[in-house]
Amino acid sequence: MGKGERTRAAILDRAIRLGSQLGLEGLSLGQLAEELDLSKSGLFAHFRSKEELQVRTLDRAAERFVEVVVRPALAAPRGEPRLRALFERWLAWPELVRQPGGCIFVAAAVELDDRPGPARDRLVELQRQWLATLATAVRGAQAEGHLRADVDAEQLAFEAYGIMLVSHHATRLLRDRKAVERARNALERLIASARR
Amino acid sequence: MGKGERTRAAILDRAIRLGSQLGLEGLSLGQLAEELDLSKSGLFAHFRSKEELQVRTLDRAAERFVEVVVRPALAAPRGEPRLRALFERWLAWPELVRQPGGCIFVAAAVELDDRPGPARDRLVELQRQWLATLATAVRGAQAEGHLRADVDAEQLAFEAYGIMLVSHHATRLLRDRKAVERARNALERLIASARR
Repeated sequence: MGKGERTRAAILDRAIRLGSQLGLEGLSLGQLAEELDLSKSGLFAHFRSKEELQVRTLDRAAERFVEVVVRPALAAPRGEPRLRALFERWLAWPELVRQPGGCIFVAAAVELDDRPGPARDRLVELQRQWLATLATAVRGAQAEGHLRADVDAEQLAFEAYGIMLVSHHATRLLRDRKAVERARNALERLIASARR
Repeated sequence: MGKGERTRAAILDRAIRLGSQLGLEGLSLGQLAEELDLSKSGLFAHFRSKEELQVRTLDRAAERFVEVVVRPALAAPRGEPRLRALFERWLAWPELVRQPGGCIFVAAAVELDDRPGPARDRLVELQRQWLATLATAVRGAQAEGHLRADVDAEQLAFEAYGIMLVSHHATRLLRDRKAVERARNALERLIASARR
């Protein structure tokens, strides 16, 4: 990475942290500049608009997600172990890449669902990619004979997504200390119901 | 209802609609006054602050939720039929009480999780009440012998909540036309896994 790229990555990492708390609409170039001790005009050299900042923040978050969730999980053996590794790291994602306000994608989803534009489009693309990655892992587990061939891979990915959402909700809003345990139980039940 | 109460209910019903799209923070007494053709000072006679408006909007939404979801479901026979009726009406809730931005509680949950205050406190209280209502329905189904006695009622309520959240997410953000069908499949699987 050149100096420009490093600066840009540092800005975006801070934007992920802030965005997890304030939402993507709450991100301001002014506040970012202040927190990073950069001039606002220096920041504008990297991102021409707030909209561009939002899209690049989502891209950077997705890049980090691949680094800390997807890639390490792909090191697990294909099939059920890999699917489990994906679930396990996904559960830990808001801590693996520090997001004090919880998963930035969840915050952005509720914020952007009614706001057409490039940030929404990108978020939808990223969420679909992730659901497709999960479905592929389910198919891998079917190919290995770990899960039944008649399981609907997209349905299983959809249900896993629901478990992550409620785990986030119960942790963040309800401060439910059993949330992660309940999420693990639910994922176990989901896998067990799909097993041969 | 007296005239004052009717006016207040009409204001709050409009606030539910607007809040589903803009969030509770996006609610403004000014915009509400304009949409309802009331004076801003007239509106202030009903709600002394934006904070009070937010709390009363949540209360009114909960009141409507009981009217259109809980009470009709309680007319179904105790046990699995009642649990199913709750799920079925819950799925329809954003249409039963028009919320063009989707369920106001989901929008508020992500918005308020990082904002301490009376609105967050009320939301947490309401969400816990609803989870308790669901758990009670599960226990009713256990008492009737429809569901196994060893099923963890809170865990089942937690998982049902996840299915609703992902259904909302897939419908609102991803515009997934299969979302409601997938949610129904997931609820069926959840009930089936708990059956005797």
